[in-house]
Amino acid sequence: MTSVRFVFLFLSISFSAFAQKDYKLWLQYDRITNPKIALEYKKNIQGIVSLGNSETDQVSVKELENGISSMLGNKPEIKSEIKGENNLIIGSQNSLNPDLQKDLKQDLDKINDEGFIIKTIHFRNKKQLIISGKNDVAVLYGIFNFLRLMQTNKSIENLNITDSPKTNIRILNHWDNLDRTVERGYAGFSLWNWQKLPDFIDQRYIDYARANASIGINGTVLTNVNANALILTSQYLEKVEALANVFRPYGIKVYLTARFSAPIEIGNLKTADPKDLEVINWWKNKAAEIYKRIPDFGGFLVKANSEGQPGPQNYGRDHVDGANMLADAVAPFGGIIMWRAFVYSEHDANDRAKQAYAEFQPYDGKFKENVIVQVKNGAIDFQPREPFHPLFGAMPKTPLMMEFQITQEYLGFSTHLVFLPKLFQEVLESDTYQKGKGSTVAKVIDGTLYQNKLTGIAGVANIGNDLNWTGHPFAQANWYGFGRLAWNPYLDSETIADEWLRCTFSNDENFIKPVAAMMIESREAVVNYMTPLGLHHIMDTGHHYGPGPWVSNLSRPEWNPTYYHKADKNGIGFDRSKSGTNATSQYAPEIEKLFDNAATCPEQDLLWFHHVSWDYKLKNGQTLWNGLALKYQEGVNQVKEMQNVWNQTEKYIDSERFNEVKILLEIQQKEAKWWRDACLLYFQQFSGKELPVGVEKPTQSLEYFKSLKFPFAPGNG
Amino acid sequence: MTSVRFVFLFLSISFSAFAQKDYKLWLQYDRITNPKIALEYKKNIQGIVSLGNSETDQVSVKELENGISSMLGNKPEIKSEIKGENNLIIGSQNSLNPDLQKDLKQDLDKINDEGFIIKTIHFRNKKQLIISGKNDVAVLYGIFNFLRLMQTNKSIENLNITDSPKTNIRILNHWDNLDRTVERGYAGFSLWNWQKLPDFIDQRYIDYARANASIGINGTVLTNVNANALILTSQYLEKVEALANVFRPYGIKVYLTARFSAPIEIGNLKTADPKDLEVINWWKNKAAEIYKRIPDFGGFLVKANSEGQPGPQNYGRDHVDGANMLADAVAPFGGIIMWRAFVYSEHDANDRAKQAYAEFQPYDGKFKENVIVQVKNGAIDFQPREPFHPLFGAMPKTPLMMEFQITQEYLGFSTHLVFLPKLFQEVLESDTYQKGKGSTVAKVIDGTLYQNKLTGIAGVANIGNDLNWTGHPFAQANWYGFGRLAWNPYLDSETIADEWLRCTFSNDENFIKPVAAMMIESREAVVNYMTPLGLHHIMDTGHHYGPGPWVSNLSRPEWNPTYYHKADKNGIGFDRSKSGTNATSQYAPEIEKLFDNAATCPEQDLLWFHHVSWDYKLKNGQTLWNGLALKYQEGVNQVKEMQNVWNQTEKYIDSERFNEVKILLEIQQKEAKWWRDACLLYFQQFSGKELPVGVEKPTQSLEYFKSLKFPFAPGNG
Repeated sequence: MTSVRFVFLFLSISFSAFAQKDYKLWLQYDRITNPKIALEYKKNIQGIVSLGNSETDQVSVKELENGISSMLGNKPEIKSEIKGENNLIIGSQNSLNPDLQKDLKQDLDKINDEGFIIKTIHFRNKKQLIISGKNDVAVLYGIFNFLRLMQTNKSIENLNITDSPKTNIRILNHWDNLDRTVERGYAGFSLWNWQKLPDFIDQRYIDYARANASIGINGTVLTNVNANALILTSQYLEKVEALANVFRPYGIKVYLTARFSAPIEIGNLKTADPKDLEVINWWKNKAAEIYKRIPDFGGFLVKANSEGQPGPQNYGRDHVDGANMLADAVAPFGGIIMWRAFVYSEHDANDRAKQAYAEFQPYDGKFKENVIVQVKNGAIDFQPREPFHPLFGAMPKTPLMMEFQITQEYLGFSTHLVFLPKLFQEVLESDTYQKGKGSTVAKVIDGTLYQNKLTGIAGVANIGNDLNWTGHPFAQANWYGFGRLAWNPYLDSETIADEWLRCTFSNDENFIKPVAAMMIESREAVVNYMTPLGLHHIMDTGHHYGPGPWVSNLSRPEWNPTYYHKADKNGIGFDRSKSGTNATSQYAPEIEKLFDNAATCPEQDLLWFHHVSWDYKLKNGQTLWNGLALKYQEGVNQVKEMQNVWNQTEKYIDSERFNEVKILLEIQQKEAKWWRDACLLYFQQFSGKELPVGVEKPTQSLEYFKSLKFPFAPGNG
Repeated sequence: MTSVRFVFLFLSISFSAFAQKDYKLWLQYDRITNPKIALEYKKNIQGIVSLGNSETDQVSVKELENGISSMLGNKPEIKSEIKGENNLIIGSQNSLNPDLQKDLKQDLDKINDEGFIIKTIHFRNKKQLIISGKNDVAVLYGIFNFLRLMQTNKSIENLNITDSPKTNIRILNHWDNLDRTVERGYAGFSLWNWQKLPDFIDQRYIDYARANASIGINGTVLTNVNANALILTSQYLEKVEALANVFRPYGIKVYLTARFSAPIEIGNLKTADPKDLEVINWWKNKAAEIYKRIPDFGGFLVKANSEGQPGPQNYGRDHVDGANMLADAVAPFGGIIMWRAFVYSEHDANDRAKQAYAEFQPYDGKFKENVIVQVKNGAIDFQPREPFHPLFGAMPKTPLMMEFQITQEYLGFSTHLVFLPKLFQEVLESDTYQKGKGSTVAKVIDGTLYQNKLTGIAGVANIGNDLNWTGHPFAQANWYGFGRLAWNPYLDSETIADEWLRCTFSNDENFIKPVAAMMIESREAVVNYMTPLGLHHIMDTGHHYGPGPWVSNLSRPEWNPTYYHKADKNGIGFDRSKSGTNATSQYAPEIEKLFDNAATCPEQDLLWFHHVSWDYKLKNGQTLWNGLALKYQEGVNQVKEMQNVWNQTEKYIDSERFNEVKILLEIQQKEAKWWRDACLLYFQQFSGKELPVGVEKPTQSLEYFKSLKFPFAPGNG
């Protein structure tokens, strides 16, 4: 063994075929490479003192220990009492000793039940850093916020942060079926392995809870709104209970979808009439059974009398009857009912966009106080762009909850990079004018406009069992951004993109700036290459993958793309103005006036509200036809630019995610062209006009595009 | 920043909430902790010299670089030529310079096309280590073998290894559907993301190829034997091509299942008659189309006229007609047809166990030379134990391929730890006596008994998109063990368990010895608590999860568990002796005689071949009833013992996998009791006898067990 020459190059090993960084989401806890910052952090975190010992406190300490060790390379010392200086002290209000409680009184008065404090204090003449709140989960939120400060390389030398969530219910809606298929799921299959539950607790359930808690999400609806009653049987409730036990320390409540006909299907009753005494009692007993297992069960989400789902109307009752009956069942236990306003009748094909308002607005003030009506952001269905839903602001005596779709049903599935917080922000900032100027959707949602006690934001989850959770690494940003906006609907998407990129990839400004700009741009890109100028619902049928503006043979008129674009020789667009369906009248007068007139209607919504001629002059002087074609081309160009930006990032990040996103952007580019070519060839049949200069010629025929079939496209409902 | 006291404990960080070690399978490449061994390795690997530059050579170098860096903590130097001593030289025969070729001639003569050499040589007076073979993939096999030596801490100081696979086709059968459900899959859903193919290449495809190549698997059938013809359309073949391109550097050929009626379904023909000229041409053209895309396409696996699948018998033709027609289509391109012998007629319920032999044996010698008949290990269907299939050894002029099931359809899904190489070994070692004593199944399969040129072993994959690939961490050992036995059907399962444990978990003897013993024991445990003494197919219907000996109402008699156990007042068991169905006559006379007489029949197969009374005396003097009951109890006890063993391992391995297996063993224990209690309560109705001393009393009634329903049990066919 003598004279061994080591000619190994000593390199730190960043190389691994099994990095799986994308499993870690925004909780990478990468080693801090800036020595000055690392030194500051080490100095300020000499030890961790946890004042409590609840399950939540335990996961808090574990998260801190894990995060700090990983970022600094050493395990922090866990101390049993406050000794020495520069400790990180964590504990809820009640666990603080009287002196500390007094010191923090003013701060504690500023926050709500879920708010937190992160503060540099001098306690008994020694500098300490304290994270506190009114309960253990609030402290956990503070801890995740603190870890984010470190992940984003912020100074922790002298902190004084208080923050509280602006809504009560910050919740994911999983459209997950019991066979683990996910309706509109593009990231594999359901995380919930019902077969192995209740006994087998997958580590992934814990990581799911960690990720959600880190952004303040406090609820999850485990099952599809197109519900299966079996979830309410004791066989499945035992499994739900096991998940609730995993999520509880992270402050996440479990909710289920209630199939309205469950009393018939699993209760052996002859009816599900909400006025029937047996039915009422069945639900009361069912609620009691659930709460016996899960004392903090959140409640039910209900899709009733919508798209074939059963509901109170099957018995001559209305949504109020149905919702209030269920509300009474869960009320004794503190549960709530989230009743969806996504309804459209098969008997009224006049204008689907009008129906939710028409049906629900008259119910204002009639729901029990533990009912919240869940309204999609727009009046159709999660399009790349929709004007805000007219119900927002129009039901002053009823709490309304936002329903966003995080999964990209109509936005290119999980192969298109689209940063949705930009879309969400646009909706939240929209001014309804329902209580005068400044009556934004955000103020409806956070309850400040009408002083609602119950408030909430729901997001239809984009999470599946793919290794990277969301199918596209950048779709993680949509989960993240949803959570951040649910906590604070006034956050801007630039801030969210910046935070997310730093936590997920790198703090290098040369990476952050162009990639953040790319993310912000991505939403307008998808609008441009799919549905510019207010076009909507022209996706291919059923799966909604790719363009299908030609589809016109479905049994219900409002399922057909032709119903929505109404292209003909005279022009294109859905006339929802007074000369048309008068859907504009559902908005406050100021907005109605704006939308009703093509000249004042925002051009981005033009074809949503107006049928205009192919020669209609746009604000830039172009004809509608030329402008439309150029918008499609612009979308394609924007994706090309996204590719250019991404191709410069190789040196800043791991090769696995770099390559993954690179390939996905190539697919997005290909599909953006597909959208452009298919739509322009189709609409050209009506406009009869040439493509303007600057628009690339299609390389395939319209017949080719029409021939494409995707029999196993995922997520089909 | 002055006077900063660092009170951090400096600990190497093994702690992480996101370790995901189980994703890495047996390719953990853990850091070598023994300093003496690490020093030896460093000394002997001063650099890597790759003599070739094919795609396979590139992945070889990457694997070596990755594995060695990870095990030794430094990246080895990649050299462009042989300079200095103690280099690791890798290259196929043709890439060696003439001197090296000469030095290795004798070794090269010893190996077959896929065999490899790992040898310490003195070349130009300098000590070097060389890995070679007749082609690049053979070298890759050598590299994985070399890395395994390091993973198992063997000395590499003075190596002289040659090894060749004993079979040609070492192949996984994925029963994966195009909607990504997996028939009999218990590890999530299909790896093949058809929606994102061909463009999106998931890193997981590469890791799948690495794992397979590391154990010598050289083929994969991507699709379910219950086939969908759409896989043969150009839309899907483009996706298949993309996968073939990923797998090719790793020596893995792609195969597909051919739905016999495809010419009708996707070819617009009126028939699929194998004698019809249009049909013959359709398949020829289809083969040409496939080979144009995938020049090394392996061929087709076919399930025909079995369980409702279409086949040549629909047109009055036979299996030979069907197989030979397809064989002609792929022959010009070097393709093969794997024709399954798993058939049983709906018109002959006399004894399902006899039917494959009865139908196929007369075809001996009639198949084209590129046809291989794929036979399940036993005559029924992948039971915890079956006597070897009577076809083995009975078709001297026909190559027969083994079909093992790695996925645990009848063995507790992915919550039961069952080490299957023990089962596989039992089958391979079985002596058919068809060419006198020593005519083992292994010799039939590797072609040495009848000098077959075409040889192979197929395993129905247990792989899905679960993070850990196989649902149960120990189910990885079944994938691993299958590959090792396909390479060498004479390996013993103790060796396989030892290797796998070292590569997957730890080299600590205190861990290895008890855990290896536990694995070996696990197979007999599952036989005992499910189907002792030759019982079979008494699983609950459809999903095959849990016990269902009472099921008797299915339309076809041989689908009912009661058909198989035939329990009545007089006794229990299926009389397949001369006094019964005479299935024993399908074996060679020596075996026939042994099996035909209850007194000489191995007791483990007693109820497979004989209906015996409840008072029948077993070899240990117990009555059949008492012996049966005690076997069920023994199975439960064995699982308890497995738990005891596992609970001692916590200090040797990561907490994530420790906990995962711990929970899974708890489930196995619970379900072993379920099996024992349900079966004994049911059979007790017939025996009318008390449970013997030593058997725990059931805690639930037979009615309770019969009431259990699993509507969404995964993998249902």
